[in-house]
Order: sequence, then structure tokens, then C-alpha cells
Amino acid sequence: MRDVLILNGPNLNKLGTREPEIYGSLSLSEIAAACVAFGEQHGLTVDFRQSNSETDLVDWLQEACESKTAVIINPAAFTHYSVAIRDAAAMLDAPLIEVHLSNPLSREEFRHTSLIAGIAVGSITGFGLNSYLLALEALSKL
Amino acid sequence: MRDVLILNGPNLNKLGTREPEIYGSLSLSEIAAACVAFGEQHGLTVDFRQSNSETDLVDWLQEACESKTAVIINPAAFTHYSVAIRDAAAMLDAPLIEVHLSNPLSREEFRHTSLIAGIAVGSITGFGLNSYLLALEALSKL
Amino acid sequence: MRDVLILNGPNLNKLGTREPEIYGSLSLSEIAAACVAFGEQHGLTVDFRQSNSETDLVDWLQEACESKTAVIINPAAFTHYSVAIRDAAAMLDAPLIEVHLSNPLSREEFRHTSLIAGIAVGSITGFGLNSYLLALEALSKL
Amino acid sequence: MRDVLILNGPNLNKLGTREPEIYGSLSLSEIAAACVAFGEQHGLTVDFRQSNSETDLVDWLQEACESKTAVIINPAAFTHYSVAIRDAAAMLDAPLIEVHLSNPLSREEFRHTSLIAGIAVGSITGFGLNSYLLALEALSKL
Amino acid sequence: MRDVLILNGPNLNKLGTREPEIYGSLSLSEIAAACVAFGEQHGLTVDFRQSNSETDLVDWLQEACESKTAVIINPAAFTHYSVAIRDAAAMLDAPLIEVHLSNPLSREEFRHTSLIAGIAVGSITGFGLNSYLLALEALSKL
Amino acid sequence: MRDVLILNGPNLNKLGTREPEIYGSLSLSEIAAACVAFGEQHGLTVDFRQSNSETDLVDWLQEACESKTAVIINPAAFTHYSVAIRDAAAMLDAPLIEVHLSNPLSREEFRHTSLIAGIAVGSITGFGLNSYLLALEALSKL
Amino acid sequence: MRDVLILNGPNLNKLGTREPEIYGSLSLSEIAAACVAFGEQHGLTVDFRQSNSETDLVDWLQEACESKTAVIINPAAFTHYSVAIRDAAAMLDAPLIEVHLSNPLSREEFRHTSLIAGIAVGSITGFGLNSYLLALEALSKL
Amino acid sequence: MRDVLILNGPNLNKLGTREPEIYGSLSLSEIAAACVAFGEQHGLTVDFRQSNSETDLVDWLQEACESKTAVIINPAAFTHYSVAIRDAAAMLDAPLIEVHLSNPLSREEFRHTSLIAGIAVGSITGFGLNSYLLALEALSKL
Amino acid sequence: MRDVLILNGPNLNKLGTREPEIYGSLSLSEIAAACVAFGEQHGLTVDFRQSNSETDLVDWLQEACESKTAVIINPAAFTHYSVAIRDAAAMLDAPLIEVHLSNPLSREEFRHTSLIAGIAVGSITGFGLNSYLLALEALSKL
Amino acid sequence: MRDVLILNGPNLNKLGTREPEIYGSLSLSEIAAACVAFGEQHGLTVDFRQSNSETDLVDWLQEACESKTAVIINPAAFTHYSVAIRDAAAMLDAPLIEVHLSNPLSREEFRHTSLIAGIAVGSITGFGLNSYLLALEALSKL
Amino acid sequence: MRDVLILNGPNLNKLGTREPEIYGSLSLSEIAAACVAFGEQHGLTVDFRQSNSETDLVDWLQEACESKTAVIINPAAFTHYSVAIRDAAAMLDAPLIEVHLSNPLSREEFRHTSLIAGIAVGSITGFGLNSYLLALEALSKL
Amino acid sequence: MRDVLILNGPNLNKLGTREPEIYGSLSLSEIAAACVAFGEQHGLTVDFRQSNSETDLVDWLQEACESKTAVIINPAAFTHYSVAIRDAAAMLDAPLIEVHLSNPLSREEFRHTSLIAGIAVGSITGFGLNSYLLALEALSKL
Repeated sequence: MRDVLILNGPNLNKLGTREPEIYGSLSLSEIAAACVAFGEQHGLTVDFRQSNSETDLVDWLQEACESKTAVIINPAAFTHYSVAIRDAAAMLDAPLIEVHLSNPLSREEFRHTSLIAGIAVGSITGFGLNSYLLALEALSKL
Repeated sequence: MRDVLILNGPNLNKLGTREPEIYGSLSLSEIAAACVAFGEQHGLTVDFRQSNSETDLVDWLQEACESKTAVIINPAAFTHYSVAIRDAAAMLDAPLIEVHLSNPLSREEFRHTSLIAGIAVGSITGFGLNSYLLALEALSKL
Repeated sequence: MRDVLILNGPNLNKLGTREPEIYGSLSLSEIAAACVAFGEQHGLTVDFRQSNSETDLVDWLQEACESKTAVIINPAAFTHYSVAIRDAAAMLDAPLIEVHLSNPLSREEFRHTSLIAGIAVGSITGFGLNSYLLALEALSKL
Repeated sequence: MRDVLILNGPNLNKLGTREPEIYGSLSLSEIAAACVAFGEQHGLTVDFRQSNSETDLVDWLQEACESKTAVIINPAAFTHYSVAIRDAAAMLDAPLIEVHLSNPLSREEFRHTSLIAGIAVGSITGFGLNSYLLALEALSKL
Repeated sequence: MRDVLILNGPNLNKLGTREPEIYGSLSLSEIAAACVAFGEQHGLTVDFRQSNSETDLVDWLQEACESKTAVIINPAAFTHYSVAIRDAAAMLDAPLIEVHLSNPLSREEFRHTSLIAGIAVGSITGFGLNSYLLALEALSKL
Repeated sequence: MRDVLILNGPNLNKLGTREPEIYGSLSLSEIAAACVAFGEQHGLTVDFRQSNSETDLVDWLQEACESKTAVIINPAAFTHYSVAIRDAAAMLDAPLIEVHLSNPLSREEFRHTSLIAGIAVGSITGFGLNSYLLALEALSKL
Repeated sequence: MRDVLILNGPNLNKLGTREPEIYGSLSLSEIAAACVAFGEQHGLTVDFRQSNSETDLVDWLQEACESKTAVIINPAAFTHYSVAIRDAAAMLDAPLIEVHLSNPLSREEFRHTSLIAGIAVGSITGFGLNSYLLALEALSKL
Repeated sequence: MRDVLILNGPNLNKLGTREPEIYGSLSLSEIAAACVAFGEQHGLTVDFRQSNSETDLVDWLQEACESKTAVIINPAAFTHYSVAIRDAAAMLDAPLIEVHLSNPLSREEFRHTSLIAGIAVGSITGFGLNSYLLALEALSKL
Repeated sequence: MRDVLILNGPNLNKLGTREPEIYGSLSLSEIAAACVAFGEQHGLTVDFRQSNSETDLVDWLQEACESKTAVIINPAAFTHYSVAIRDAAAMLDAPLIEVHLSNPLSREEFRHTSLIAGIAVGSITGFGLNSYLLALEALSKL
Repeated sequence: MRDVLILNGPNLNKLGTREPEIYGSLSLSEIAAACVAFGEQHGLTVDFRQSNSETDLVDWLQEACESKTAVIINPAAFTHYSVAIRDAAAMLDAPLIEVHLSNPLSREEFRHTSLIAGIAVGSITGFGLNSYLLALEALSKL
Repeated sequence: MRDVLILNGPNLNKLGTREPEIYGSLSLSEIAAACVAFGEQHGLTVDFRQSNSETDLVDWLQEACESKTAVIINPAAFTHYSVAIRDAAAMLDAPLIEVHLSNPLSREEFRHTSLIAGIAVGSITGFGLNSYLLALEALSKL
Repeated sequence: MRDVLILNGPNLNKLGTREPEIYGSLSLSEIAAACVAFGEQHGLTVDFRQSNSETDLVDWLQEACESKTAVIINPAAFTHYSVAIRDAAAMLDAPLIEVHLSNPLSREEFRHTSLIAGIAVGSITGFGLNSYLLALEALSKL
């Protein structure tokens, strides 16, 4: 079994109640459960976390850096301005995959820039829960 | 009586000592006291908070989202770059009003953009303490 | 009693019939009446005017300049391009407050710039009729 | 018979003498006569006006708004900066058509933007007098 | 009788089924038939063509260049980036008129630029089928 | 079994020989074979095509539009400027997924813009062959 | 004796009281008197006018156009956005000189653009009253 | 003897008739003949082709890629937007030289960008037929 | 002895392991030790801190503001977007010096802007550990 | 008598032969002679110099700075990029006037920016020789 | 025999030692010798000069202007900002050809602009020594 | 002892008299003396030079290039536009340090760009004389 850290940025703890026409009606804990189950079937031990704090995300990325753990990250709002998260992510040796539930490129213009995409192995956006599951599948094949 | 959450962003805890020619000589606790008293006269129970942490502001907005509490926010420096606060604020059902002590449009150019204004019911800027009191008055009329 | 001049720019004479979902269903004369009444309660004699002419607005601001009268202005479309109105407004010794019925920052991009805001004491936007009343209240406290 | 208001912006009263290699040698009153005659043949009563005043154009558009009259407008120089005319035009229920004698897109860069085109039913540019006649024809078919 | 070539760019062969709320419910062959009939009444022999190939449009414009035939073109998507079509169109001696079914200026921003407009005699946009008929009328008067 | 059309843009027929350090050493026919096999396991009949012609891609998208077939597209160079392909893709009722072998956001700046992403259900970039297989998996779950 | 029309834009009627550290302490009528007197010494009959109305300035320029009178213009705020004044000025056969009391290039950025300068014979800025007198001198030498 | 492929983009088949004051009065077949003759004197077998199709140019570049033939290309209009041609050209192992008959930098601004120049060995612009002959000379020395 | 606060932003706790070709192989605790020792020799008591939290940096700057302590700051990623840190730093009475281990201007473009530099006494960039020591030296001379 | 230094930038030594339709047919020595004569009549001793060297102009401005001499400068091409000349000019206590023979704002876009205008007392452009004479006149009145 | 002036800008005197992977290993005097020899074979007397001084280049261009000598210029760093050299070059009656050893368009972005190219007969870039020889060949054919 | 060349750009010879509130009251020869003395204490033989000529600075950098001497440079106004100095500086093998007396980032916007910083080992700005001494100290530690 291989470890995977799935990190989620600000306001994703409100999933299911927040703008369900954009983000779907699943709660974050339902997504977490689906990821853990799907990971098990693919030989991946999933550690699923969320925080509204930029610092937590930086700390967790540093932790992954030291344990050489692969990371799937949905940086949410931080995608667009957190150079700190980008710098932490750039230190990883294990692969990093960026996911988004919806497609940021079809929303407001300030969501069109990603500081993370340029250093990720790949990005998967727009499939709701499946963005996470496809990323796990992608990791299991790397 | 109706609840109102008044949120204040970074460095506003230094009011009265920080550049008084721009921000006035009242301390934040004096502003808080004035808001509580003024609120009482208008049937509003004011909960007045300040933090230098983006995460605190996001958490407090989520709390207001769940309790359906109206919010008056002076995001201070975060006005110009915190997409996380904007996303949290966009979830509110109760009204949100943006206030500023001074007029950001007559200061440096990087203060001319507001990520919050576009999703607020309205904005009141430039009246010092009165920006808060007028926002309370506005809320009491909504 | 203290005098206040309330100035309104182009097309505001059509209020109540023009895009009521944005501007509300009150007519301008109803707003004028409410302002006069509210002013009286706060020791302010309100002189409420509207014009579709940039020249009228410049002339009225010069008049206020000479009589040292405070001004509340809703420049409407002129907000975004009239340097002439800005120059006239910049001559005032008494305070100037900018008001808008709706929130220009949540509308088309060419409405995001204000030539007036940078020289106003403060701005109040988004509260419909209450934008005016709050401005009167703010004036009564200056 | 159906009414049509044809509005003309600043300096068009000088047609025939002003840069005839761009605007042609017809005077504005010759264009007016041609429009009236052509309108009659197509069941349209043409009211043809010109002004150098932005305010006049705003007032006339408001008048058309109230009488639900269709409008053909050649805003001339105002095309490029008058938000006031755009706001007045946006209130019309009857159709608005934008016309230009010459092709603004083949002239100076500051003539490449039109605040009016985005809210018009359609635009006809570059055919001299025929821009007006084609617009009348278009109106008679709407 | 005088010849006119009416050229249509990519995806216009799908008219009637593609976003009918923007382009109307007429098929391209219905438009072709209307143009041929209307042309006959005005002394114009209409040759109506469509292609999804940039190359075909360039070839047809070259053909028109050699036979000195007037052209009405709806370049569709090519409007915004095909320098090749612009170069071919610039070689024409006979007049070229640009038409659009809808008004590109009220759609996405990348449709606000036209490489063709600057070299056309004139442009007619926003009248559906009538954009073509008005262009034919314009041609018959040149 | 459900049909899927996988479309590939210009120069992808050279895969395996073209810059293998970016695109990997698999040939396009090897990718096609993998997609067909993987599709069969997921109940998808894959029709895999490539062309250097913008016209072919537009035609194939129109074909998919009529047969209501889902599409996975790697538009290659056309990603960044082909409005014609965007327009054709926008007509689809069945879902469209954009894939890229490498991560365009870590390459030259002119590859940072995608005309397709804004209208796709989702995008998967950076996983080589797996970008295609993950897209098939995503389709099988929609 | 030769005629000269000196035209002054909005707010210049307030000279002497408006920001004297920028515009000097002379009133506009003192400047008018100095211009008339200076003109007489140089064989020029000066007609000195001011208006806060864009329309007046357009009308006066058209009048000068017809009488072939030379013009000295201080368009004030209109310098930066009035295409209507530019168009009227462009029709003149007699020379046009642009003057400013102060140096717009050392003030706010929105004053750095001049729509008039590009069509004037020449510009004289920054010399207060002498900007006008030097322009008269320049005219007398043309 | 060494092979050279000379490729010419859209509308160059019209040379001699198209804007001769810019491109000269030689026809493309005269240029082809001169290139073949000049090549023979320098040990180069010239294969000279033209197409209005982006697809043909991509195919020919791929052909040159496989036969390791040197290429001289005048991409004409495609210079400024064809990423497909750039990608095809980037695959070449043998040298590529970009030529233009006239100097794009002294023409319209949209001709100032070249997608090809950055990947060419060198560029020769502005010498008419001699641009081709100098490129052949350059190739014979590489 | 005089106090100095040395503040370090996010990811600097990973120094020595993170991209040593850019940041050198010293760990942050080695830099801290060198600063303390060097400070002692120059009459400066160094308090050396690091945090991945923007809030910590704001709090520490407020603390320095109250104790009137001089500050040396390496804001790392926060250099480029934290208006909150800039606002806190702007309150200091004692001098503030900005340091960077490497030269941000020779890295990615989003690292070319500094919100801090404009309010610092001075900046020292590119000398690794010596950036800190030189800043201490500079402080000891102020 | 008062001293005036008149400085001329690169290529002005070629006046009379260089593009006479823009710069007139007077040679620079004729302009010098006219300035000296005109100066004498106005109590000004003119020292007229030209150089193609940025360094000479900087040195001469420093010389004027020390002798507190007034300066009239036609920086020619240096107007648009020489920060060194701007810095030297900014040191002057005596007045500096910028002159141009033609009107840079009606020429190429790279001539629309002036680094000098922002620090000059005033600017006189477009009057040929008279630009200099009027500047002398202006100086004699300061 | 016909004269040709070959001018070289700053730092080219260091050729052979400066970044030989970009500029090649030939010294400037070897290039000069090759040009002189090659010129002799083509009936051209080459005068080959280099300077680090903008003024020298301006002076030499003025000299060429008077003697009506053709010029080949490698302006090096001056290519990108010297309006003075552009102005001097624009006065030439004899042809001017711009050459570069390497391809500026594949280097840093500030090297992508050329003030010279727009007024040159033609440009030859990227062939090392051969850029000069091809330019001589081009001149011999003009 | 090791050699160091300290180079100073235009107008620095006026230090002490030029805007002392920005640059301090020390003259350049006092700075030179302090540098020489300080250098001696640190084993550095300082050669201190100033010139208003870009060419001198280029020549001196080439001289340092050949003698492999380290350089400290205060390019003053040339910082912002001299590509020639950048090219010369880029040839150095020995280290180059950029210094400024004041902090360019807190001055006019055209001083915010540095062509030199990107190729310097490091930069020290804002400490007056100490900027030089700290640079010497930094050099002695490299």
C-alpha cells in the first residue's frame, strides 16, 4: 500500500450547502469517504484533510515533502494568489496533482490563473467527486 | 433583537496609534463600544470581532452563514487579495455590508480593487467610526 | 438648519420605470420627498435636483462652492468619464459624499471606475433610497 | 403608419462641408429629406433631429422610451464615451439601430469602441446616406 | 444583371439547429433561397456558398478578385483571427460587405475584434436574414 | 455499449518521434489501441481519429453533434486560436472533455490560453496516455 | 486687424479662487482683459469666451470654422475625453492652438492624454496667463 | 547536390497582381524559376511549392522532417497565428529559414508578431526575390 | 545593546534541503546562530523567528511597533501579495530592512514585485547568509 | 542682461535638410542666429548649443545648474527615453522650458511620451523657429 | 566600386570572447576582414567601424547621409531603445540594412523590439558572419 | 589585496547638492574616500570612478571583464534603460553588485524597473554611503 495525502483549501468544508449548482450536493466527508474507499481498491492509503488556513496547507505540504508522500490538492481560493503554497508544493519529490470540482476557466476572470498548475504533474478539473477519483487513478498509474 | 456580526481585518487592532491622520484617533475598542451602544438603540445585538488571521475571518463568515446572521465587514488589507474571504462571504444568505474607515480610492493604486464589493449589498467608505454606525443603520432598515 | 444640495445625474429622472430590478420601484420625486423629510428631522434643509446635463451639474457644484454648501451627489453615468464634474467637485470646501442606488462594482466593467470617489469624503453604494438617507445622516454627523 | 425617431450627434450638422472624402458631399438636410421620403414609402413617419448636445440626445431617447418609438441613432463622437446616452438607450422597449456614415473601424483607434453597439438591435456602418435608408428598411421588417 | 458572391464561414451550415436563440431558426438553404430571390428583384445574380474550410474562402475570394465580382461575406469564426482571409479580401476591386446574423459586440469579448471590418466598404450586423438582404440592397445602390 | 469519438489535432500523428521528452515515446496508433481496449472494458466503443486539418475537426465535431456522441478532444495547436473548433464544440449536447498529453501551463506563454476549456465539461492534462484513459473513465461515470 | 477666438472650457470661470497654487491668482476676466489688450498691440481682435458646456464649445468651433477664424483653446477637463470637441476642431481651416495654464503632464495620470494636441498646430502649456499671450504672439507670426 | 524545400503560404500564388507596390511585379512562377536556377549554381535542388491551405504546409513540413530536408518558408498570413505550422516547423532537424518579400515590421501592427521567427535559424525580410536567393546562399553555407 | 527582530516568512524553515542551488545549503538554524553571533559583535541582541503564517508575521511586526524595535524581514513568498504585512510594517517607527537570500529579479516574473520594498529603509538581496549579516551591519550604522 | 542656455539634442544639426516637410527648411545656425538676435531685444544673452551626445546635454545642464542659468531645451529623440537628462534637468533652480519644432503627439506613438515635460515649467510645441522665440519671450516674462 | 559603411554597436568589440555559444567564436576584426574581402569580390569598398558610443553611431549615420553611402548596421543593444539612431538612420537616401549575428526574437523579451527594423530596407538575422555577407550580397543587388 | 572597481552613473557627480533629502549631503568625493579607506581595511584596492557617459561605463565594464576585476555599480539613471550597460555587465566573470543610495521602488514608477538587477549577484539599496560600504563588505566575503 502507498500513501496519498489529499489536501483541500478554504470553504470546501461547506460543500453540499455552498452553491450546489456549481459544486454539487455531496458533503466533503462524503467525498473523503469515497476517496478512502476508492484508494483502498487501488492500493492507496488516503489521508484526507481540509483547512481554511494557508499555513496548515503549507505545513502539510512540507510534511509530505519529508515523508515523500504523493499529494492531490484542491487549493480552492488559494489557487489564485498563494505563492506560499506554490513554494511549498515545488519542494515535493513525489508527484502532485491539482484537482477542482468545477471548471475555474468558465467562472470569474480572477479564477483563470493558477499558481499551482505550472508545477503540478497534471490537473483534473470539472468532474465533481470524479476529479478526485480520477486523480487517484492517475496516481496509481504513475 | 436581531444579531449582527461586525468583522475587522488585520492591523485594525492598532487603531488610534496607526497613522491617525488617515484612520482617526479612536481605538478599536472605542469603536466596538460605540457600535454595541448604537446597535442596542436600533434593535441589533452587535458581536464585534477583529483578527489578523485570514482563517479567523473565513471561519467567522462560515459561522454567520450557518446562523444566518447579517455581517458588516471591514476586511482592511484583505480587501485587495483574499479570494478565500470572498468565497466565504459569497455563501451568506443574510446581507453583507463592506465598510472602510478611510476612502481606499484616494490612496495607493493597489488599494483601488475590492474583491468584496462585488458581492456586498452595499459599501460605506470614508466616514471613520460613522462608516460602521451608518452600516448598522442600513442593516436595521433592510 | 444647515443647507445640503443633493445632485442627481442623467436618466435618474426615469427612476421607477427604468430597470426596477436594479434601481428599485421608487420614483425620483418619492426619493426627493423622503430626503427632504429625513433632512428636516436632522436639521438639514435639502435642495434636491436632477439633470441630464453635465453643464448643470458643473454649474450647481460651482454654486455650492460659493455658498459653501455640503453636497451629496449621485453622478450616475457621469461617474465614469466626466473630468469636468470631478474638477468642479474638487473645488468644494464643504464635504461631498458620493452615493449610488445600486453597487456599480457588481455591474459592467466600464462602471468599475469612479472619477468622483477619489475626491469625496466618503461613498455609500447599494442601499437604494437608503444610500441617500445614510449620506444625510453622515453629513449631520460631520 | 409607424413613427421612427432618427437622432444625430455632434458635428453632423456640418455634413457636406466637413471632410467630404470621408463623409460624402450630402448635407444633413438632404439626408433628412431622403429619409422622410424613403420612410413614407415604407409606412414610417420619420422625425429627424440633430444636436451637438449630449443632454438633447438623452432627452430625446427618454421621449422615445415613453412613446415606445423606434430609434435610429448616429451618435457620432458620443459613440465612444457617452455612458449617459448608453443608459438612456438601454431603457427603450422599441428597437434601436446604430448607424454610421463611414466605417469607424478603419479610422483612429479611439473610434474603435462603441458603447452603443452592445445594446442595439443591429448596426449599419459605411454606406453614407444608405446606412440610414437600410436601417429604415430593417426597421420596417422588424 | 450583376453578379454577387455571398460567402459563409464555418458552422453556418448548421444554421437553424445551432443556438437558435442567437441565430434564429432559418436554415442556411432558406437564407440562400431568400437571397437569390431578393437579388433577382434588384438585378443581382446571387451565388451563395458556405465552407468550413479557410482555404475554400481564400480561394473563392481570389476567384471573385479575378472576375471582379462583388462579395458579401459572413466570415463567422474566421472574423476574429484569419489574416489569410483578410489578405484575400484586401485584393478585391469590387466592393466587399461584412454581415453577421447576430451582434458580435453583445457576445463574448473575443468576438469584439474583426479583422475584416477595417477593409470592408461597410458592415451590417444583428438583423438575422435581413442582414443579408440589406447588404444586397446596399450593393445594388453602390 | 456507448460510442465515444476521440479527436486529435495537428501534428499528433507524429507522436513518438516529436519531442519525446515532452510527449513520451508512444506512437498515436499505440495510444489509439490502448484507448480502444480500455474503452471496451468500460462499455465504450471508441472511434479514434487524427487530422492536421481544422476543417476535418470541425466536420467531425458536427458529426458528433448530430449523432449525439460524446467527444474527447486533444486539439493540440488549435487549442489556442481556433474559434471555429470552439464554435463547433459548443454545439454538442453530449459531453466534451479536453485532454493534453503534457501540461500546457508549464510551457510557452502562448499555450496558456485555451479556447476549448471554457466550454468543456472538464479538462485532464499532463498524464500522457493516461490523460486519455482517465477521460474515458470520467465519461463512463457521467 | 485679424480675428481670434479664445475658447475656455469648464471651471475656468472660477480662476483665481480655484486651487491658486496650481492655476495662479488671476481671475478669468483679468486674463480676458490682458488678452484683448495684448491682441490689439499685435493686430488681433480677440473674442474671449468661456463655458461649462461641451455643446457651447462645439458650436463656437463650428462658428469659427465658417468664419475661418483662428482659435486658441484651453479645453480644460474636456481635453481628456471630448471626442466631440476634437471633431469640431478638426474641421477648422484657420490655425488652432491648444493652451493650458499649468502643465497637465505633471499632474494626475488621467490628465496626460490630450485628444486635441494631435490636431493642433502647436501647444503651449505651463505659463499661466502667458500661455495665452504667447499663443497670440504665435498666431500673429503664422 | 542537396535538397531544399521552399514553401509559400496563402495568397502568394497571386504575386505580381496583388499590391505590386509592396510585393513587386514578379509572379510566383518567375520567383520559382529564379530560385531553381540559383540553387543549381550553388549545389541545391530546389522544390518550390505554394498552398492556401494551412494543412498542406503542415504536411509538407512533416515530409521535410522525415526526409531531413532543409526548408525556406514564407508563411505569409500564417506567420502571425498558426501555432500548427510552428509546431510542425519545430520538429525539423535540418535548418529552417524564414523569408518575407516585404518588411512586416513597417506594415500593420498585427504583422509585427512572428510565431516562426523564434524557432528559425534566421530570418531575411524586405528584399523581394532576393530574400529567397539570399536564403539559398545562407543555406549553402550552413 | 540594542534589540533587533529578524523575521522569516513561509518555507524558510526548509532551508538547506529546498533547492540548494538557489538558496544555499545552510539550514535556517545555522543562519539564526550566525546572526546572533554577528549581532553580539555589533551591539545587537538578535531575536530570530520564522513562521509559515501571515498572521504571525503581522503580530510580530505589531509587537516590534510597540517596543520600537528595528526589524530585518525576509518575507519570502509573502513579499509579492501580502498587503497585511505591508500595512503592519508601515506602522514601524524603528527602521525596517528587507532581505532575500537570492535575487528575486532573476527568477519568475511574479517574483519581480515587492509590496515591502517601497516602505523599507533599504533592501539587500542575493548574498545568501550575508544578506542578513549585511543588514545587521547596516542597522548598526543607522 | 540675463543668460539663457538653449540646448538641442541629436540630429538637430541636420535641420533644413532632414524631412523639411516636418521640420521646416531653416538650418540650425539660422535658428541660432534668430534666437541670439531675438534674445538681445528682450534682455537675454543666448548661448545656443547642439550635440548628438546625451553626455554633453547632461554636462551642460549641470553647468546651468551651477550658474543658475535658465534653460530652453529641445531634447529631440532623447525626449522619449533619457532618464539621465531628466535627472540633470530636475536639479535646475532656474526655469527650464521644453520646445519642439513639430508636434510629437501627431507623429509615431513612441514619440507621445515625454520624460522632460513633467519637470519643465512649460512646453511649447509645433511652431518651428517660433517655438524657440516664444520660449525666450516666456522666459523674459518669468 | 561602390562604398558601403558597416556600423557596429556596443560590446561587439568583445566578439569571440563574449558568450561564444550565442555569438560564435570569430573576433570582430576577423568579421571585418571577411567583409572587406567579400565586398571586393562584389564591387563594394567596405568601411567597417565599431563603437560603444551612441553618439559615434549617430555621427557616422549623418556622415553616410551626406555622402549618400549605403549602410549595413548591427546596432546591438541600441536596437531596442535608441530613438536617436533611428532618427539619424531615417535621414539616409541610400539603403540601410539591419543585421544581427544571433536571432533577437529567441532571446529575452526586451530584445524583441527593434526601433531600426521599421525604417530599414530589410533585415538579416541569425547567420553569424554570414548575416553580414548576405547583407553585402543584398546591397550589391539593389 | 584584491581589486574592486566602483562605477557611478550620470549626475552622481552632483551628490551633496542634488536633492539632499533623497540622496544625503555627502559629496561623491567624500563617498569615494570612505570607500577607499573602508576597502583598505578589508583587503580591497578600490578604484572609484564616475561618468555621465554610457560609453565610459560600457568601456570600464569591458576593462573589468578583461582584468577579471569585481565591480560595484550604481548605474543611476542608466539602471532603467541602458541595454548596452547590461550587455557589458553580463560579460563579467568576477561578481557584480548593484547599489543605490536611495530606494528606487519608493520613487516614480519609471524607476521601478532595473535592467541590471537580473544579472547582478545581489543588490543593496537605500542606505546612502552605507550601500557602498556594505557592498564592499559583501565582496570581501564572496
